Amino acid sequence: MSKPYVMGVDIGGTNTVFGIVDARGHVVAADSIKTRKYTNFDDYIADLHKSMQRLLEANDAVDKIKGIGIGAPNANYYTGEIINPPNLPWGPIVPLAEKVSKVFGGIPVAITNDANAAALGEMTYGAARGMKDFIMITLGTGVGSGIVINGQLVYGQDGNAGELGHVIMKRNNGRVCGCGRTGCLEAYCSATGVARTAREFLEVRSEPSVLRNMEIEDITSKDVYDAAVGGDKLAKEIFAYTGTILGEAFADMVAFSSPQAIILFGGLAKSGDLLMKPLKEAFERSVMPVFRGKTKIILSELKESDAAVLGASALGWEAKYRYEDPAAKAAPATTVVTLPEQPA
Amino acid sequence: MSKPYVMGVDIGGTNTVFGIVDARGHVVAADSIKTRKYTNFDDYIADLHKSMQRLLEANDAVDKIKGIGIGAPNANYYTGEIINPPNLPWGPIVPLAEKVSKVFGGIPVAITNDANAAALGEMTYGAARGMKDFIMITLGTGVGSGIVINGQLVYGQDGNAGELGHVIMKRNNGRVCGCGRTGCLEAYCSATGVARTAREFLEVRSEPSVLRNMEIEDITSKDVYDAAVGGDKLAKEIFAYTGTILGEAFADMVAFSSPQAIILFGGLAKSGDLLMKPLKEAFERSVMPVFRGKTKIILSELKESDAAVLGASALGWEAKYRYEDPAAKAAPATTVVTLPEQPA
Repeated sequence: MSKPYVMGVDIGGTNTVFGIVDARGHVVAADSIKTRKYTNFDDYIADLHKSMQRLLEANDAVDKIKGIGIGAPNANYYTGEIINPPNLPWGPIVPLAEKVSKVFGGIPVAITNDANAAALGEMTYGAARGMKDFIMITLGTGVGSGIVINGQLVYGQDGNAGELGHVIMKRNNGRVCGCGRTGCLEAYCSATGVARTAREFLEVRSEPSVLRNMEIEDITSKDVYDAAVGGDKLAKEIFAYTGTILGEAFADMVAFSSPQAIILFGGLAKSGDLLMKPLKEAFERSVMPVFRGKTKIILSELKESDAAVLGASALGWEAKYRYEDPAAKAAPATTVVTLPEQPA
Repeated sequence: MSKPYVMGVDIGGTNTVFGIVDARGHVVAADSIKTRKYTNFDDYIADLHKSMQRLLEANDAVDKIKGIGIGAPNANYYTGEIINPPNLPWGPIVPLAEKVSKVFGGIPVAITNDANAAALGEMTYGAARGMKDFIMITLGTGVGSGIVINGQLVYGQDGNAGELGHVIMKRNNGRVCGCGRTGCLEAYCSATGVARTAREFLEVRSEPSVLRNMEIEDITSKDVYDAAVGGDKLAKEIFAYTGTILGEAFADMVAFSSPQAIILFGGLAKSGDLLMKPLKEAFERSVMPVFRGKTKIILSELKESDAAVLGASALGWEAKYRYEDPAAKAAPATTVVTLPEQPA
């Protein structure tokens, strides 16, 4: 029987979204459960299975799934495990691929982190269709990255490659980063980085700004965006500062892999010229002459509401891991032992 | 007839070295010509062919060559051309692969830059045997790099990927680099970078040093090395400074591709603990916690005298480009045209 669909599952700290996806990147149907509700991993898997099964039945797709792809924070492609995720309560290591394949009777499963899933989604259905070399940068609470070289995702020796949010942009007096070091790209160019820049600018500078009317600790990147759109000069400078650091970081990335494009995804990426103009200027000014004018900096072409499920689903087409029941494998050996001996 | 050999050719500004290499990485025989003697590219190719042919005949290897691999500055794997090389006099673009394949009657040829050739040599015959993910760093007059991911050299969209000597290590007040920008790794951690550091240290600091007995503009990295080995404190600090910047740069590279190893080659790499101790300390201190203790920093295992030829030769096994005579291809068409018309 032909298998025209995959399932994509995006596990976030708050919600788990899943959908049935066809080969053209159309989300046939989608649903979600609350990740946060489950402190026990097995309970979570049982309910996820139930909800996914219900979606499959409602869409006459029960036996039409080629594979399941899952994007989750700190999900390791090689081991199939989620390892030390910051926002999930299930313990240091959970065997995600094994459990999901098991409850679905051995359907192939593959997992990876959110940024890698985003890169796969873009390559399979979005702005990177037909590209063999590109870098996906996700600008959210943190800065994530998924790198594609020679048409393949870069996992590195341990599945953890592509941590471009953690290249060092300020080697002296850099901001403390969540990773425990200082000066990382993420500490400046994530949504939280923009808010930190706002607090820093408001403290050390004296220009007027509508941001001064707010409680300084409550300022978010959205507040800075709204102020900048309203013409606030200091808020615009905060975006210019952010874009410039991103552009300089991109120049170093290009020296590494000379990609066709760097593709931006996430809330901050939708800041328009406020971010993109200083970013592109800094990039062209900073990139090595031999690469000048070659790498496009573009936005994701996936609809934001679909992107996470689509990205995860792209992994489903190539998924290879299948759960096999150890008891089923042991059975034939037992049978042999119980056979009567042949007469001599 | 079986083809048990490849030829490796290393084109340097001064000499061109070439050799016959077997599948185990043994250089069966080698010879060289003076690159510098030839201002005309066709003369160079003619003499190179004559000399290589002589070596093949002397070793009974004329019809036993599977392919020819060539390493040269700015050699582009995709186009087969040398493009704007700084130390070769043959013009902005020379069609190296085409000319070499042509004089050898259509033997497959592949070319790449020196650092990529070094990486291939290490993967095929040296310290990277069995590795699928590693980075080769050559510390010579400049800093070159060859990157292997998923067992493949990273060429990028244009054949120019792997310019890790030109990631920015000093964003403020950085040294001018040969690439036209400022603050590049190469401006600090090449042999010339070490000499520049020596001049800078001697000018801005007041400690005694045997280096002060020399003409400041004539100091080379070798002088600094000799002084450091002799116990000179300032010279040792120059190596510590160099190693620290390299270690910090390596930490960012690991965030990109999570390689199994970073392999060092070239004169500076043989500085022993003077360089390696501060380098490894800075690397372990700087690398993101998730990668700590995973990436080995090791030295090339290829004999220096053989390394360039071996590296280039490694490319010969997979070489695909063959020169085809346009006249030969056109011949059948001509024949058809001159056939008499069939009677009706």
